[in-house]
Amino acid sequence: MTTDDSVTSEPTATPLAIAAQGSFAVGGTMVSKEGSFNPRDPMNPVGQTLHGDHARVTFQIPVDARPLPLLFWHGWWVDSSCWDTTPDGREGFRTLFLRRGFPVYLLDQPRRGSAGKTTTATEINTEPNEQWFFNQFRLGLWPDLYEGVQFSDDPAALEQFFRAMVPDTGPLDTEVIVAAASAAIDRIGPLVLVTHSHAGGFGWLAQMRNPNVRAVVSIEPGSGFVFPEGELPEAMPSSNGTLEPTPIPASEFEALTRVPIIVYYGDDIPTAPTDIAGRDNWRVRVKMARIWVDTINRHGGDATFVSLPEQGIHGNTHFAFSDLNNHEIADQITTFLADKNLD
Amino acid sequence: MTTDDSVTSEPTATPLAIAAQGSFAVGGTMVSKEGSFNPRDPMNPVGQTLHGDHARVTFQIPVDARPLPLLFWHGWWVDSSCWDTTPDGREGFRTLFLRRGFPVYLLDQPRRGSAGKTTTATEINTEPNEQWFFNQFRLGLWPDLYEGVQFSDDPAALEQFFRAMVPDTGPLDTEVIVAAASAAIDRIGPLVLVTHSHAGGFGWLAQMRNPNVRAVVSIEPGSGFVFPEGELPEAMPSSNGTLEPTPIPASEFEALTRVPIIVYYGDDIPTAPTDIAGRDNWRVRVKMARIWVDTINRHGGDATFVSLPEQGIHGNTHFAFSDLNNHEIADQITTFLADKNLD
Repeated sequence: MTTDDSVTSEPTATPLAIAAQGSFAVGGTMVSKEGSFNPRDPMNPVGQTLHGDHARVTFQIPVDARPLPLLFWHGWWVDSSCWDTTPDGREGFRTLFLRRGFPVYLLDQPRRGSAGKTTTATEINTEPNEQWFFNQFRLGLWPDLYEGVQFSDDPAALEQFFRAMVPDTGPLDTEVIVAAASAAIDRIGPLVLVTHSHAGGFGWLAQMRNPNVRAVVSIEPGSGFVFPEGELPEAMPSSNGTLEPTPIPASEFEALTRVPIIVYYGDDIPTAPTDIAGRDNWRVRVKMARIWVDTINRHGGDATFVSLPEQGIHGNTHFAFSDLNNHEIADQITTFLADKNLD
Repeated sequence: MTTDDSVTSEPTATPLAIAAQGSFAVGGTMVSKEGSFNPRDPMNPVGQTLHGDHARVTFQIPVDARPLPLLFWHGWWVDSSCWDTTPDGREGFRTLFLRRGFPVYLLDQPRRGSAGKTTTATEINTEPNEQWFFNQFRLGLWPDLYEGVQFSDDPAALEQFFRAMVPDTGPLDTEVIVAAASAAIDRIGPLVLVTHSHAGGFGWLAQMRNPNVRAVVSIEPGSGFVFPEGELPEAMPSSNGTLEPTPIPASEFEALTRVPIIVYYGDDIPTAPTDIAGRDNWRVRVKMARIWVDTINRHGGDATFVSLPEQGIHGNTHFAFSDLNNHEIADQITTFLADKNLD
């Protein structure tokens, strides 16, 4: 497969041939207020219902599609648009993987973006926090980008990055989120799950309850590292708080050994403790992810840990899929899927 | 032009040939908290920024595109996904108009959906309200669909309809909304604006300040009827509150005479007062819209009022663009654009 057509969204790129596209809501709950609805008092909630806590899925299926779709699941503070155009204006994974022949499904998890209709309210967070995210997502150490980072130094790219963020409309509830995602997976059928950041942990939980998940590609999982009871590594303190492993019954953990799993981490992650929280956060996550991968394999699974810089791929932020070298990251994932006969 | 390919999203439909697709944030503001950001205390807002109040635009440009794009602007309590797959699972205006050769741009207005990042918080509305909307959007009189309504009687369609709704993350602020939409129009260039419901009124304001708007197609505008000072019709009481005309300087009103404007209203709108709020609401809006169109034309403009039932098209709800006969509504709009040499 060539990727020559994949690195530009200029009009000179080969057109996309799309067999079908659309979107749907899936999963969720319904609450209702007892009584009898009165059409002469329509704003009175008595006798009325509220559907919420669903996911929304947006999909495109290319002509001559490969058999297994990819379901892309965004991380914290972003929605499905994170997989679309990159901050610097190039094609994101949504379109790059369509060009590679994969049916592409994008998830908005409950209470985020287009799936914002929630049965439980939360206070919308309007605290200025972007310098924190600049460091935490490893663009650099504010206000400086890291030397060699795969993020454009055009201020317009940073503005797009900050404006791509989306607050939660309700509490971040693991069961609500995983239930709706699993309902989406039921509806789509067998697929490869591609998760980012906090969807990493949610993604294992969805895989454990849903045999339609045939592989998990996890880009910088940030939380939810599950271990069999009795095999927990020690908690890992950092200057960004303590990362705790999550105990689950060994019988549930076995599900993680049934499908290929791969995790990727980018660059500029220290190995020695530091008092810069946005860096130290990733030091312990990489350390935990390595132990987690080893634990799955010790139980007979097929898990792979990839440090991109150790593969000679340098400068990746927390958002490798929209970084300047995102076609190179897409190559890595495409090769993994081919190696596992999932393409 | 045939529409044979337009009425189904079955895999047997002709594939779409897409030259380019993507999304971007546009417009908005930035707030910041004075002081110096401390990377050792990253959750402290001091010295940090917050970008918000932007719009998000998602676009697809077909191969051999017509010259003028369509910018679709959603109404109240929904986001850009309202133009995608219909509640009963068919292709929405997004894909129908791509098939007709138009570049399609979809707006998420500030504080809605993927443009949810707001500089001002609001309380997320979780009041049960769906029976109100069922009546207000003229699917029927709860729990009964109207006889002959263009909405599926499959309960799954009603569930999709309710789950397509999206709450606001911040106050509904006309200036914030119109400024971001106008920034989107600046970036896209000359276009035809297609508005729904409360975007009707916002849409005239955007047209008045932006010469890139070459025509306005407004599906059931619900508010923001602007008139020259001194030419205001009387306020119109209804059992859903009083509809007030909005006075603006005559010099600003003149902008509305510069481009073709067409407004469409659907079926099941009474002409005599009724104490059912969800019906009476539209009685006064139709009455106001007729006077508004006449006023534009008296000032030398080119405005058209269309009652779909008067054209022999029956059963349309407030959401004509996703109703069962949405291809027929698309035909109406396509014909209008051809008549005005805008295609």
